[in-house]
Amino acid sequence: MPDPLFADNLAKSIRERRPRAIARGISLIENDDPAATDLLKRLFPHTGQAKIIGLTGAPGAGKSSLTDKLAQVYVERCQRVGIIAVDPSSPFSGGAILGDRIRMPKLATHPNVFIRSMATRGNLGGLARATTEAVLLLDAAGYDVVIVETVGVGQDEVDIVKAADVTVVVVVPGMGDDIQSIKAGIMEIGDVFVINKADRDGVERTQMELEALLELAVRADGWRPPIVRTVATATPPVGVEDLAAAIARYLSFVTAHPEVRAERRRRILERRIIELIRDRILSHIWQQALRDGRLKDTIERIQNRELDPYTLVDYIVRKSLKEPPPGS
Amino acid sequence: MPDPLFADNLAKSIRERRPRAIARGISLIENDDPAATDLLKRLFPHTGQAKIIGLTGAPGAGKSSLTDKLAQVYVERCQRVGIIAVDPSSPFSGGAILGDRIRMPKLATHPNVFIRSMATRGNLGGLARATTEAVLLLDAAGYDVVIVETVGVGQDEVDIVKAADVTVVVVVPGMGDDIQSIKAGIMEIGDVFVINKADRDGVERTQMELEALLELAVRADGWRPPIVRTVATATPPVGVEDLAAAIARYLSFVTAHPEVRAERRRRILERRIIELIRDRILSHIWQQALRDGRLKDTIERIQNRELDPYTLVDYIVRKSLKEPPPGS
Repeated sequence: MPDPLFADNLAKSIRERRPRAIARGISLIENDDPAATDLLKRLFPHTGQAKIIGLTGAPGAGKSSLTDKLAQVYVERCQRVGIIAVDPSSPFSGGAILGDRIRMPKLATHPNVFIRSMATRGNLGGLARATTEAVLLLDAAGYDVVIVETVGVGQDEVDIVKAADVTVVVVVPGMGDDIQSIKAGIMEIGDVFVINKADRDGVERTQMELEALLELAVRADGWRPPIVRTVATATPPVGVEDLAAAIARYLSFVTAHPEVRAERRRRILERRIIELIRDRILSHIWQQALRDGRLKDTIERIQNRELDPYTLVDYIVRKSLKEPPPGS
Repeated sequence: MPDPLFADNLAKSIRERRPRAIARGISLIENDDPAATDLLKRLFPHTGQAKIIGLTGAPGAGKSSLTDKLAQVYVERCQRVGIIAVDPSSPFSGGAILGDRIRMPKLATHPNVFIRSMATRGNLGGLARATTEAVLLLDAAGYDVVIVETVGVGQDEVDIVKAADVTVVVVVPGMGDDIQSIKAGIMEIGDVFVINKADRDGVERTQMELEALLELAVRADGWRPPIVRTVATATPPVGVEDLAAAIARYLSFVTAHPEVRAERRRRILERRIIELIRDRILSHIWQQALRDGRLKDTIERIQNRELDPYTLVDYIVRKSLKEPPPGS
């Protein structure tokens, strides 16, 4: 049974922005520890203040560098910045292989900056949920800006960036096939587009392709996503201030259209609730099924095609729910 | 209420490999139509015969071309081949934008070949489930080989290729950062590796990097994944017969180690059951919650921070489950 005092104390330390408490809290979230829910219940009332920036793009687009340089811009403006770097999971090691990737050392040790890598463990998904909750935690801890950086291809990643207040999609010149893939996956959720590594050949063509794609995607909210060119690794970095300005413009646009903002936040919240229900119920029901010693035999019967999985699922659902769906 | 005769007739037509019936069946699966479950119950006893090949890699690795040329090899051996191309979803249009991508016209119209693009719709995930079920359907329809082609970054994609009998990971020379990303996401689930576009500069370096990575990842089953070089777009294609041979070697290895195969199939089945339970229960509970008129007000109260989502989820879970988890 979770100790309510433990959650109280941890929530208090997180609200005081103690890095070790924040790290501890995120670990509880990552490990799906029962104490995480207690903690989040306490932190939730203090959320809703941070600007949440989702930043995504294909592997190799330079997202980490861009994230770090963008964070630097906010830090110079005396803002507190949290960074969540979402790594694709390693199904074998179960950990964030890229977690040890080298980021800007100056930034990582800055007192107003908190950086954390996250990866999923196990099969039951939950990366989107864990990331969203880590963002919530940093929001409650009083970070003014939270940047969530993720590789933009899978559905998990789409869900993660959809939960941000503003979504930045990063492309690089000469992606060829890649722009097609990104287009399908994530193109239409970008509020701001960045052509990073804009000193490379092909930048004009990429700009034209991007413009053509954006031409096609008419948004319901009337916003026209700007395209910003950056060279994040240049000294000094090129275009990163412009990126911050484009992000600020979109956030002003949203503030000026409260119905757009309310609708977006509402969708985000509904999705979060659905995910919470899913995670809570699924692990519980599966644990129950595993405790029922017959599951192993049943799976063997399915493997032998004596039974089909749909009939088993009907049975489990009927047994678990107070009001099972009709037909099961 | 689904009509059992409809499912009977459709299952029969699918077993006769009628393309329109197959396409219809996959659409039911994609749309999560209640009739899909009836259909799959009928088809399931006839599954387990096809060789299921998962093929994955970064955007731009040439997966479509490679899939088509590999299919060609099997077709020339008088095998029936089904191809499922998984497209990242388009959250706005809700459809497979890449679905109309141009594939080998000769292959697409061959009577022994069935090609289908799939994309996810909506928020509740389900792409992995839908893809797995479409594969099941093609298996029941008597396709000897089913190739599932997917972009290899997100968790969904990892789940999809994990459900195959053999997993092929495609890289290209000079990926740089990309090999790192792929490594984290999917490297360790590859049974066979392909360096496609092997006529490009940097092929030796990519080979060395791959070998070094494979050196690190010792597999529990003792298999050492081979690396095959291909140029899928050459005329004639280079290395694709070698790829088919490498796939065959792995499948023989698995057959010679029945415990490896049984364990793999068992894990796949368990995952499928978990996904089915999740999708069934989640959509049902959410529908119930939506019918309860107070949900909208409750969400508004959460948006105003008067209530937190965890307390709401506790309430919904307690109300829905016969035996709610302790602490809720």
